[in-house]
Amino acid sequence: MIIVLKNNQQEKQIDNLVNWIKGLGLGVHFSQGENATILGLIGDTSVVDVDIIQSLDIVESIKRIQEPYKNANRKFHPEDTIVDIGGHKFGGDHFQIIAGPCSVESEEQIIGIAKSVKAAGATLLRGGAFKPRTSPYAFQGLRGSGIELLFKAREATGMPIVTEIMSVTHLDLFMDVDLIQVGARNMQNFELLKELGKTDKPILLKRGLANTIEEWLMSAEYIMSEGNGKVILCERGIRTFEPYTRNTLDLSAIPVVKERTHLPVIVDPSHACGISRLVPSLSMGAAAVGSDGLIIEVHNDPTHALCDGAQSLYPEQFSKLVKKLEKIMPLIDKKLDSEQN
Amino acid sequence: MIIVLKNNQQEKQIDNLVNWIKGLGLGVHFSQGENATILGLIGDTSVVDVDIIQSLDIVESIKRIQEPYKNANRKFHPEDTIVDIGGHKFGGDHFQIIAGPCSVESEEQIIGIAKSVKAAGATLLRGGAFKPRTSPYAFQGLRGSGIELLFKAREATGMPIVTEIMSVTHLDLFMDVDLIQVGARNMQNFELLKELGKTDKPILLKRGLANTIEEWLMSAEYIMSEGNGKVILCERGIRTFEPYTRNTLDLSAIPVVKERTHLPVIVDPSHACGISRLVPSLSMGAAAVGSDGLIIEVHNDPTHALCDGAQSLYPEQFSKLVKKLEKIMPLIDKKLDSEQN
Amino acid sequence: MIIVLKNNQQEKQIDNLVNWIKGLGLGVHFSQGENATILGLIGDTSVVDVDIIQSLDIVESIKRIQEPYKNANRKFHPEDTIVDIGGHKFGGDHFQIIAGPCSVESEEQIIGIAKSVKAAGATLLRGGAFKPRTSPYAFQGLRGSGIELLFKAREATGMPIVTEIMSVTHLDLFMDVDLIQVGARNMQNFELLKELGKTDKPILLKRGLANTIEEWLMSAEYIMSEGNGKVILCERGIRTFEPYTRNTLDLSAIPVVKERTHLPVIVDPSHACGISRLVPSLSMGAAAVGSDGLIIEVHNDPTHALCDGAQSLYPEQFSKLVKKLEKIMPLIDKKLDSEQN
Amino acid sequence: MIIVLKNNQQEKQIDNLVNWIKGLGLGVHFSQGENATILGLIGDTSVVDVDIIQSLDIVESIKRIQEPYKNANRKFHPEDTIVDIGGHKFGGDHFQIIAGPCSVESEEQIIGIAKSVKAAGATLLRGGAFKPRTSPYAFQGLRGSGIELLFKAREATGMPIVTEIMSVTHLDLFMDVDLIQVGARNMQNFELLKELGKTDKPILLKRGLANTIEEWLMSAEYIMSEGNGKVILCERGIRTFEPYTRNTLDLSAIPVVKERTHLPVIVDPSHACGISRLVPSLSMGAAAVGSDGLIIEVHNDPTHALCDGAQSLYPEQFSKLVKKLEKIMPLIDKKLDSEQN
Repeated sequence: MIIVLKNNQQEKQIDNLVNWIKGLGLGVHFSQGENATILGLIGDTSVVDVDIIQSLDIVESIKRIQEPYKNANRKFHPEDTIVDIGGHKFGGDHFQIIAGPCSVESEEQIIGIAKSVKAAGATLLRGGAFKPRTSPYAFQGLRGSGIELLFKAREATGMPIVTEIMSVTHLDLFMDVDLIQVGARNMQNFELLKELGKTDKPILLKRGLANTIEEWLMSAEYIMSEGNGKVILCERGIRTFEPYTRNTLDLSAIPVVKERTHLPVIVDPSHACGISRLVPSLSMGAAAVGSDGLIIEVHNDPTHALCDGAQSLYPEQFSKLVKKLEKIMPLIDKKLDSEQN
Repeated sequence: MIIVLKNNQQEKQIDNLVNWIKGLGLGVHFSQGENATILGLIGDTSVVDVDIIQSLDIVESIKRIQEPYKNANRKFHPEDTIVDIGGHKFGGDHFQIIAGPCSVESEEQIIGIAKSVKAAGATLLRGGAFKPRTSPYAFQGLRGSGIELLFKAREATGMPIVTEIMSVTHLDLFMDVDLIQVGARNMQNFELLKELGKTDKPILLKRGLANTIEEWLMSAEYIMSEGNGKVILCERGIRTFEPYTRNTLDLSAIPVVKERTHLPVIVDPSHACGISRLVPSLSMGAAAVGSDGLIIEVHNDPTHALCDGAQSLYPEQFSKLVKKLEKIMPLIDKKLDSEQN
Repeated sequence: MIIVLKNNQQEKQIDNLVNWIKGLGLGVHFSQGENATILGLIGDTSVVDVDIIQSLDIVESIKRIQEPYKNANRKFHPEDTIVDIGGHKFGGDHFQIIAGPCSVESEEQIIGIAKSVKAAGATLLRGGAFKPRTSPYAFQGLRGSGIELLFKAREATGMPIVTEIMSVTHLDLFMDVDLIQVGARNMQNFELLKELGKTDKPILLKRGLANTIEEWLMSAEYIMSEGNGKVILCERGIRTFEPYTRNTLDLSAIPVVKERTHLPVIVDPSHACGISRLVPSLSMGAAAVGSDGLIIEVHNDPTHALCDGAQSLYPEQFSKLVKKLEKIMPLIDKKLDSEQN
Repeated sequence: MIIVLKNNQQEKQIDNLVNWIKGLGLGVHFSQGENATILGLIGDTSVVDVDIIQSLDIVESIKRIQEPYKNANRKFHPEDTIVDIGGHKFGGDHFQIIAGPCSVESEEQIIGIAKSVKAAGATLLRGGAFKPRTSPYAFQGLRGSGIELLFKAREATGMPIVTEIMSVTHLDLFMDVDLIQVGARNMQNFELLKELGKTDKPILLKRGLANTIEEWLMSAEYIMSEGNGKVILCERGIRTFEPYTRNTLDLSAIPVVKERTHLPVIVDPSHACGISRLVPSLSMGAAAVGSDGLIIEVHNDPTHALCDGAQSLYPEQFSKLVKKLEKIMPLIDKKLDSEQN
């Protein structure tokens, strides 16, 4: 970390700063230039609060050289982390497809979809039980009983299940869920992240709507610093000025994240764009840029379930998409998990 | 609500949609144009899930005419809501100044600052006990014991206290806090909002970093729909591309919000910009656009407490600012609360 | 177009509005609801100025049903437009790769790169002669003589050339350029667009940093409405809050644009991210989502030309990338142009 | 400027870089740390192209210490620049109000508005002759004859006139305009900026919709580096995700800009929000944060000119606003120019 001081500062203030830094267990390298005085901090600077230093009157600016995340950092863990969920592996040369409906609605619905997405090549089943909704008047999901229905679908198909947690107080209900999803709105619910870090459950950490890649990795770090290294990242679109798509899918984040961290990263094209007919193209793009998998909404017969259509593909569209994804795998040195088994 | 259908749709699909809408208890007005078929929905459309309709294949686009919030809507409650906190009123012709340190650090510190900001004209005391930090390695606040210290400062000065809650599981610790703050990162922590809605505690609801004004009012609606109408809104900057200031303070949101809702709205210039020397200018601007108050960070002697400097004013700067704010009051038809008592 | 009026308006004001709309040659369908009065506009609403209507006191809100662009609109021109540049076709089942250096520097440099990118599979040569630079102190390009050097490279290799125009006053210099690029900063330089519309030169229209897809198509419409239909669109990243990549490449824009317009659309991954090692992944993604081509920066030996390295690939990296792109073509029902010839 | 190199680089590459920097006339201070090698650049680094260095394989990151603008930099010119336009001064303790219609429509209209805004306290007259419109089908302004009408209004009232230039090729028409406006969309039309820099006309430089403060000052630098120091900056809103207001007025930019540059900076609240009833509040806010003036749209009788209403105040609303602005002046140590004369 480099701290650039303003010119003509009182020595006493600089001394205070230097002593405070040394008190954090860091060394300081002092360099007096013509136009600026520069302090180089030596040691583990992840303990340093950049905001505090930035706010000091004598400081012109500050620059991190090392990333503030450690457990998630590829520099200290060069090999890909493989997260195994019921025999299905995320990371390395694996490519997983998670699929399922937006919301769990009934036993018949969720088992029906589970069977059809499994047949098409999906390896994990997604389904919303607790639903984060902008409006308190909108359907909030089946909650606890939705999770029960997911368990039944798992029993019927053997597929591990993925569903979203919205509160620390619901944690007990999730202890038998295979992959616990933290949604975009909770990416910086730090108390929730800490509690999840104390479990040994795999966590699917979605990127927040307006969070930088660094903040996303720092949220992974929250989970990992408590001892749980089984984190899978998920890009799902960021908020921009463009109104046509609900969010802007940031596919350039994928190669960046793969470079910075050893954790697997998958893509959710359904929520990113909010328009189901764009999902196949974006899924192909997500695979081509090197992600480790996809999480896609698939709904059952729309003539019977009007409510289930948001951003979802029909099973036959999904099945066609999987066949195309299969063909792109050799170009990214990966294999669909469904082919491997 | 108006739904524009695509051309040349099958009658059966349109019938399905119309029946589903009627099933929600709404009327439908059908209008067949040359280029488009338009459905007008009649009744309380706040129950309608826009995303679901938008996703239907037969729908070209959809447009709300009524706002989706009811309790927070000024249309149904034209007079300003006044929220009274220990005799200090927010809303109407009142202007409140909340001040205090970023973090509570010690009894001496918090009582010292409380006395000095009270002397300068602040009416409520803020101080962080639970601190949301991007990094798990940064200081997370004194937590429960920080709240105890705030109680001591209240006892010493008579000032009501404002502090942030980060988890539903901490709610017990906050039952004697005068104004419970929901931070920007938790603005859409819906489970927390619902629980706060079941209490009778006044809530300070900060706008999320990337949340629209409508989403912000919908989060107020979450609290209000559970029965708690004592919500104060707080603008604290939104995330944009501009790197110079930490966030972009959206002062145009103030007159918009005052028009849309009867709830009081205050401004936090300290967190918005992250640069203490900009705080006085932005505070003046926030008053001039018609907000109902300010929440400002003030720190004690910086030579003794290096850590407390983030975006904070010194007491003497704060005192000068209050004198200027006093003079702007007549122009916005308000009075500083400290003048009134 | 639908205009929603506020409640309880004076009849006279509504009459004024209706008469004004009729004066534009449009019909008006009047619909009086319980909570709102709605005007439906019938006819060619592209002549209507939305901003003016929006600003009227009696108007609650306004909604376009038809897109405001006509010449660029796929609805009125369902087949893909094919733009032919020296025998190389953009659009349909064609995929073109444009490559070359950031700036033209010398005859030796530009001919050298031209030969190497042609050998690797590029079909057009790009090179900056006029360079838009944030700083007046940065190198502004070789300008007119840079174009001369591009002509020499074309002569040496047979490749058509692409280069950026920055001012209407330079138009004479560009009359022998094969594909004239309008850069992101000039996407709404309307006077320039109009003049280009009066020529018969193919135009490569880059999306502005903060421009919506609709604004981008409206800028194409500026060129087309003057009679020049040979417009190729180019996505090159939008400005967001994410600091890691210079811009955020909006790959979801590609399927959206392909749906809305019949014009070809290509992708510039080099400028979008500003990091050359991300270019291969993003190029693969850009192809997979269905774009019609790529424009990629390739530089010559970096040990001899330090200055030419910005976001550019080495020729051998570029050559490897083209081989991978070749393999992705069947999945998007396209062919590399270099294979076809 | 500080360049942080990646670890374990070949000496030869570092030597190449150091030699290249020295070739630019700069000194290099070499500092070898445990985890990083750091180069400190000594001298005038405004000549250095950050993008090129950033793109080098051996460079981890780069950090400017000095701002890249010189003529516009307050460090080298601590006193406020005063720009005098026909006796009306911008900067220092002056506060100017520019007012007028969106578009010039007729002699009667422009002279009528000019008289009424002058009576209310405006000192300069604005009016659009060349209009930048998103759509080629929207009214493009009276162009040259609009400027003639502005001259007549100037003759009738003595008010200097402000109007927007859209192309270098129109420069002749503007040689008798008192203050030439460069609109947001042309802020980085560098060829236009250079030509304006060669004139001695005062320039009103609006901030681009998605441009950082630094880029805005660099565009001022383009004008100033050609010899024209008479630049007035104008904040007019930036593009964000918030849909309610057309743009987000960035009032925090005002104190930042005043700190960084000696140039005057004014605010355009009309275009920023696009909603005329918000203009009075935002104008008060703009004054309170310390700007040097306002540019406000005022229209004439709306019953006669429906088309002229976009984001404009009525004369009587404008007059009331000016009276309130007068009262805020003492708080920002300024005086309305109309009071001074």
